[in-house]
Amino acid sequence: MNTMQVEADSKPWSMAVKAVLLDPQDRMLLIRRSNKNSHFVGKWEWPGGKVDPGEDFATAVKREAREETALEIAIIGLAGATSFEMPQVRIVMLCLECRVMGGQLQLSKEHDDFAWVFLRDLGNWPLTDQVRSFMLDYATRKVHRDE
Amino acid sequence: MNTMQVEADSKPWSMAVKAVLLDPQDRMLLIRRSNKNSHFVGKWEWPGGKVDPGEDFATAVKREAREETALEIAIIGLAGATSFEMPQVRIVMLCLECRVMGGQLQLSKEHDDFAWVFLRDLGNWPLTDQVRSFMLDYATRKVHRDE
Repeated sequence: MNTMQVEADSKPWSMAVKAVLLDPQDRMLLIRRSNKNSHFVGKWEWPGGKVDPGEDFATAVKREAREETALEIAIIGLAGATSFEMPQVRIVMLCLECRVMGGQLQLSKEHDDFAWVFLRDLGNWPLTDQVRSFMLDYATRKVHRDE
Repeated sequence: MNTMQVEADSKPWSMAVKAVLLDPQDRMLLIRRSNKNSHFVGKWEWPGGKVDPGEDFATAVKREAREETALEIAIIGLAGATSFEMPQVRIVMLCLECRVMGGQLQLSKEHDDFAWVFLRDLGNWPLTDQVRSFMLDYATRKVHRDE
């Protein structure tokens, strides 16, 4: 491998998924990161997490939603994708619009509060920094699309 | 399952990947679908295809680029994602910005021509209908970002 190749390939790519859980009023579920996390404690986010090796994205987002909220969900559309760098890995974060199909909301230890938030109010919430601008862009696009 | 659940879950989600292969002049590689395809013959597209079961997206886009162009590529960033419906499945198409790392361009039987196209000229090309607007949006955003 030449220098350019080593550089471009040195940090692997990995996928994370997020569930943009929308209710019939187009409010979305945000959950707050608890002090069991090592990063971004107190920040609000969409449920989700890493795709396991060999797992497809649809299975992953349903599993993560179940683990973090105890809700059963169905994917209804694509919210979009964004990417960011971590020390060891580069992440593509795929965000899926979802609906709750069953279950009662119960958080895991990774989160300590939840809120159903109108799209237009998202800017008032302290969101995780890496995906804040993506989340706000999504909400703006969706408000305009639905008008 | 209730009716809504059956409806939302009846058509599975699947992932496809596309390689937006950029050269140092920010031209992108387009390849033309040959008459060995059952759909979209003569339309131009980015190299790519379906993610195999159990395969991660980064492996898939490199494999598809190799199969369709004989080029070895590295992922340099995220171009974006779009989604569309097929008769049996709903597709999330993840598009990765890539660079050529090695190999000599040689097409498979699925394509019969190629071109390196400036971002600003993309609108003049007959692109596959399902992703045409996504491709043009991407090119417009990238031209503005790079200015």
